[in-house]
Amino acid sequence: MAGIKDVAKMAGVGVGTVSRMLNDSGYVSLDTRAKIEAAMKELNYTPNELARNLYYKKSGIIAVLVPNVSNPFFAEFVDCVEGELRKAGFKIMLCNTLKDVKAEAEYLDLLNRHIVDGIIAGMSSLDESEYSKIHKPIVALDRYLGEEIPVVTVDHKMGGRLAAEVLLRNGCKRILHFRSTAEKESLYHDRHAEFQKIMDEQGIETYCYDLDWRRLDIQYYHQVAEEVIEKNLKFDGVFGVDRLAIECMNGLIRQHKKIPEEVKIVSYDGTYITELVEPQISTIVQPIDRMAEESVKSLCELINGKKVKNKKSILIPEFRKGGTTV
Amino acid sequence: MAGIKDVAKMAGVGVGTVSRMLNDSGYVSLDTRAKIEAAMKELNYTPNELARNLYYKKSGIIAVLVPNVSNPFFAEFVDCVEGELRKAGFKIMLCNTLKDVKAEAEYLDLLNRHIVDGIIAGMSSLDESEYSKIHKPIVALDRYLGEEIPVVTVDHKMGGRLAAEVLLRNGCKRILHFRSTAEKESLYHDRHAEFQKIMDEQGIETYCYDLDWRRLDIQYYHQVAEEVIEKNLKFDGVFGVDRLAIECMNGLIRQHKKIPEEVKIVSYDGTYITELVEPQISTIVQPIDRMAEESVKSLCELINGKKVKNKKSILIPEFRKGGTTV
Repeated sequence: MAGIKDVAKMAGVGVGTVSRMLNDSGYVSLDTRAKIEAAMKELNYTPNELARNLYYKKSGIIAVLVPNVSNPFFAEFVDCVEGELRKAGFKIMLCNTLKDVKAEAEYLDLLNRHIVDGIIAGMSSLDESEYSKIHKPIVALDRYLGEEIPVVTVDHKMGGRLAAEVLLRNGCKRILHFRSTAEKESLYHDRHAEFQKIMDEQGIETYCYDLDWRRLDIQYYHQVAEEVIEKNLKFDGVFGVDRLAIECMNGLIRQHKKIPEEVKIVSYDGTYITELVEPQISTIVQPIDRMAEESVKSLCELINGKKVKNKKSILIPEFRKGGTTV
Repeated sequence: MAGIKDVAKMAGVGVGTVSRMLNDSGYVSLDTRAKIEAAMKELNYTPNELARNLYYKKSGIIAVLVPNVSNPFFAEFVDCVEGELRKAGFKIMLCNTLKDVKAEAEYLDLLNRHIVDGIIAGMSSLDESEYSKIHKPIVALDRYLGEEIPVVTVDHKMGGRLAAEVLLRNGCKRILHFRSTAEKESLYHDRHAEFQKIMDEQGIETYCYDLDWRRLDIQYYHQVAEEVIEKNLKFDGVFGVDRLAIECMNGLIRQHKKIPEEVKIVSYDGTYITELVEPQISTIVQPIDRMAEESVKSLCELINGKKVKNKKSILIPEFRKGGTTV
């Protein structure tokens, strides 16, 4: 396959000139540009993507980064984001970051090279500094990535409080609290701190189980639930993310425990799977559709060079009563 | 924003010339090309995507069309496809066709215009003729789109037979059969024909419920299950897609029916949600990961101009026993 040298040779210019043009890093006369392009075409030379979007700084494509799209929360988020972006005239490039640790950095690079016009970071494990370097359209979900970058989040502190209040109202005395952890601090974790704080204040006994943030797969949740159930801990209340709450409930049902009479359960996220089980799970619902709308709205403002009205959109979670609380 | 006329004017050429260049539809002198590009740059004119990939016939992007990614089957499929494409060095552009009937045609157009290098049609409702026009890398899931287009499917006839055999072995006499229909004939539906055929041969009474193919949302499945349960039909066996089987089981549990003693249930697809409920659903599992692998493999062969070894990959479904059959 032809390389930049062949192009330079055929165009009768130096490699530096071709590179200058491809990288838009200096003056190249129209005439020379024409010769170089003719040579590239003649040799069917495919340059780095930079060249492709050289003249046209818009690709019409937005990258959406999520841990994995088979996770119900992110499936619904991507679904909503795709719809919103479509309305705004953008296509969506999807990236599952769990499968490839380098993916996040790679997509930031695509942004720098005009392959994508913007990024919605539904998941981010890079240092804040990696992001602050980039002065391009980025919107973050649930994580503060610096002055420049709008964040869309939910009042997770309120979410944690709502969950705690429900279990307290239900008279729970010993609560199993599944805490998600993360390598990087995420706003998402406020719910755990708040939930725990309230329980401690109320002198409620809690068993805290710290989850591995890298594992979002159902096998892991199943195994964690099994592990806890086998321990035969005496608990009358459970708080954890949807799938874990469900796995836990199933384990209890297999032990012929009565839900909600013997054990009350409140989950976090409120994705569709909480309505798929019997009884349906009482849950703190994150407004996924609104999160998608806000993310796209802020991103479009950035792309259109407008000032982002709302650097931090904080949406309100709601309690939805199912059959796992009274 | 600047239009093609402004570009033509500034470049001192006719609109036709600019269009000829953008569409690569006729001779344009190097000199003129250079003037036009300079004008486009000066006016910060964003031409149709065609121009962007004019010289470079590869974008490194594959479009994946699915009805909606929040459907568990397609969420898992997209998840696997994304991983496979990543290994092959491609990025994935995601399109939810349910949200926009024009989307499918639009993406075929993107393919023609080199914006994407290939398409994996996880869902297709266009006429076969629309596809046969296009001699470009396309792989279809579960639907025959003509000679040229490799199809990845599952032996759904076998799947239907497996389901029928299980319910027969379980001694079911009156079976509720949820049939999915589609605007276009899809291989996916063989399972219903085969299932029904066997039941008829065995003289088993069946209630057939024909579903609206346009509805894949949980609300619809919930409503259908409610409707059927309220009718108080006397059935001792159920066959339907995962979510419907689950909704149906939940309705029965609410009626204090014993599963599997009083009613046996076999679902189709075997997505993770069948393992999320208690009891877990006995199901015919489609090998989603293998379907993704095969789709990507065939697509890459097409893109690399190789002869596709396997124009029709037929994968084998398997029965996975859960707690809804004995």
